[in-house]
Amino acid sequence: MVNLFPLLATTHESEYAPFVLTGVLLTLVVIYLASKLGGELSRMMDFPPVLGELVGGVIVGASALHLLVFPESGAVASDSIIMTVLQFIGNLTPEAVTSIFASQSEAISILAELGVIVLLFEIGLESDLRELQKVGYQAAIVAVVGVAAPFLAGTAGLMFFFHVPVIPAVFAGAALTATSIGITSKVLSELGYLKSKEGQIIVGAAVIDDVLGIIVLAVVASLAKTGEVDVFNLIYLIVSASVFLLGSICLGKFFNKSFVTIADKLQTRGKLVIPAFIFAFFMAFLANAIHLEAILGAFAAGLVLDETDKRKELDQQVIPIADILVPIFFVTVGAKVDLSVLNPVVPENREGLILAVFLIIIAILGKVVTGWSVFAQPGINRLAIGVGMIPRGEVGLVFAGIGAASGALDKPLQAAIIIMVILTTFLAPPLLRFAFKEPVPEVTKEVDLVS
Amino acid sequence: MVNLFPLLATTHESEYAPFVLTGVLLTLVVIYLASKLGGELSRMMDFPPVLGELVGGVIVGASALHLLVFPESGAVASDSIIMTVLQFIGNLTPEAVTSIFASQSEAISILAELGVIVLLFEIGLESDLRELQKVGYQAAIVAVVGVAAPFLAGTAGLMFFFHVPVIPAVFAGAALTATSIGITSKVLSELGYLKSKEGQIIVGAAVIDDVLGIIVLAVVASLAKTGEVDVFNLIYLIVSASVFLLGSICLGKFFNKSFVTIADKLQTRGKLVIPAFIFAFFMAFLANAIHLEAILGAFAAGLVLDETDKRKELDQQVIPIADILVPIFFVTVGAKVDLSVLNPVVPENREGLILAVFLIIIAILGKVVTGWSVFAQPGINRLAIGVGMIPRGEVGLVFAGIGAASGALDKPLQAAIIIMVILTTFLAPPLLRFAFKEPVPEVTKEVDLVS
Repeated sequence: MVNLFPLLATTHESEYAPFVLTGVLLTLVVIYLASKLGGELSRMMDFPPVLGELVGGVIVGASALHLLVFPESGAVASDSIIMTVLQFIGNLTPEAVTSIFASQSEAISILAELGVIVLLFEIGLESDLRELQKVGYQAAIVAVVGVAAPFLAGTAGLMFFFHVPVIPAVFAGAALTATSIGITSKVLSELGYLKSKEGQIIVGAAVIDDVLGIIVLAVVASLAKTGEVDVFNLIYLIVSASVFLLGSICLGKFFNKSFVTIADKLQTRGKLVIPAFIFAFFMAFLANAIHLEAILGAFAAGLVLDETDKRKELDQQVIPIADILVPIFFVTVGAKVDLSVLNPVVPENREGLILAVFLIIIAILGKVVTGWSVFAQPGINRLAIGVGMIPRGEVGLVFAGIGAASGALDKPLQAAIIIMVILTTFLAPPLLRFAFKEPVPEVTKEVDLVS
Repeated sequence: MVNLFPLLATTHESEYAPFVLTGVLLTLVVIYLASKLGGELSRMMDFPPVLGELVGGVIVGASALHLLVFPESGAVASDSIIMTVLQFIGNLTPEAVTSIFASQSEAISILAELGVIVLLFEIGLESDLRELQKVGYQAAIVAVVGVAAPFLAGTAGLMFFFHVPVIPAVFAGAALTATSIGITSKVLSELGYLKSKEGQIIVGAAVIDDVLGIIVLAVVASLAKTGEVDVFNLIYLIVSASVFLLGSICLGKFFNKSFVTIADKLQTRGKLVIPAFIFAFFMAFLANAIHLEAILGAFAAGLVLDETDKRKELDQQVIPIADILVPIFFVTVGAKVDLSVLNPVVPENREGLILAVFLIIIAILGKVVTGWSVFAQPGINRLAIGVGMIPRGEVGLVFAGIGAASGALDKPLQAAIIIMVILTTFLAPPLLRFAFKEPVPEVTKEVDLVS
């Protein structure tokens, strides 16, 4: 609330708190500028705005302007232009700046995570549960093929062609399984295909893929650590994920009416949006607490509330909240990417580049084949479904991050995985646009959310 | 994004990150439940909802349920029920929980600060600049009297009646000068008097009071530290605060049109709300950077954008964002208060209680007299203006916190200041209601924001 004057300076850590707020405010200004400039330019060039937001993030991030860098990616406070500005403004010691940098980065990361939670809640609110149930089996098959094909092809290829040892090969294979619900759904929504049959299969498969992906990650990380798989944990994860999703959808049918009754009785400000966020954040907490992803809980909450007759009013109020929080997530994902690992002039990057080319081919083919696993749907756009599963986005980055932290991956393989994640994420929106280029019947095309 | 399984546990600090998110989500659920239950009950009993949100915060905070406690107030991780839940869920070591507790508390504090920034931005949007200019001189006089009267009476009284040494007496006197813009404006807005002449004088005086208060704080903290006042810093603070407020209002008249032009050109989602928040957060950053309070910048940004013809549309979109962020601020202020210092059974509390009674009398009388400093306004509600200046709220808590950190205050005086801040904050809404009990003409009464 109050600023620290130089004359008030003491060594107490909480004394830095006002500068953390200063840093967070300046970072948010940078994030919003990057997302708006990127999004608008992207739209002018007829790309989806989310691609521009990611590129905006890359430009302000570790690859170029160094306005938004993170300690997890190995940056120190002096790498951050914003911290340099703060140091100048506040006449701070290097130790103070290091402490402020850590706190500020953590605050922005939490805001980005709240952003992706709100994004999935909004997507849940916009998804029609009955439509999703119709494509449930199809989505499950697409997800299983989309996890198995790239995992097996990637792991086997790395072991036989590149003589990568088993543990890192399995880790890289696991990183190939991810599908980013966030990016795919945003692009689908921007193209107006979120509620098409293809869109529902992709989103459904991405949700199931996330559940499968997290199980694969748990198993692989356990392999990397102990050399053996914990069967009980594996069974626990599979069961809890299934029970959570199906259970919340079934219980939701009863909870619906209580929600409307409660919201109707409230009289003070936020009478609709606060109960909705209590529910969404509680579901996200619950998912996290049983070792699933928070975004799954938020998505389930959105699906449940979509069934109430408050749906439209709620959607209207969630939009500005999402507008403020979601760009923090996309810009942060872009900013955390370091494109310098792509530079072929540096000799150490070459091994990684060759591995990357192989991983990218597997990443694309391994997901594109999933479109042909869809059955009994004559006339469905199989290419669009396969292409829609391609972006790894934030989920792929989590795999790469945990792989790096576990020490199982050497630098070239780590770089190759990151390049694969970047390219699949950046290629997916134009590819998806291309795959959907034939006009769909107006009945399956939803209203464009991007006004 | 992804959860940490016990099998992934390493000693790396970033490994705790998923549990920080889990903690933040659970804390937000608790905060929203407390604010809604408190606000609704308060409204049922015909009190302003914000009082209920504060009491809800007190109940979930350090005084009662220990769901929401903060390390700055001396709490450790094991004091927090939420951390105990996380420890159970994640099977965490005490060291891990301590680290998570610190990160989670910092994230909630940043969200609370963003909450008060958005609150002041919204209040700026709702305040009419021309009306505020009409009451400018009046507000300035009210503010100066409201700073000088309690400061002089408090400091002199403590020195002569209680033989308190000069430095702690001056510090306690300074804590008496604060006026909480946040609480006062929220109550005025709830009562429908924000745009009345009394409301505008109170808000204007509270803004000026904040500027004066921060200068007093800087001077007193410098006194406490070095024993002498830094004249250059004092002049710098006075000049920068005046230039910032007047300058932003004048520049705003030119910036207005550019803002509308830019917002009209944008095509992607958040085309109005993102530019508005870029401006608000930049102004808040700027205020912070020149050693003023961030909330002053946000308030100035709101005043400027209120002059544009996008005002209504923007207001509509800011409301749900404020609904989500502002309760975090009010519940946190309540939660940080420890009512156990009020317990008269504990002998150590008695000296503090006597000092507290003296400070409360000065706090109320010193602000009530300000109403009679208003000139040339026949028929104005002088009592309401004086009473509107009473709540110290978060600003008073900042004074108490910095005083405690500087070591200038002994425990009884520190407790007395905290009790004064609590009581003035809790008494002001019912007193303000009472002072405004005679009906105002409908022309000055604005539409009730609490639908």
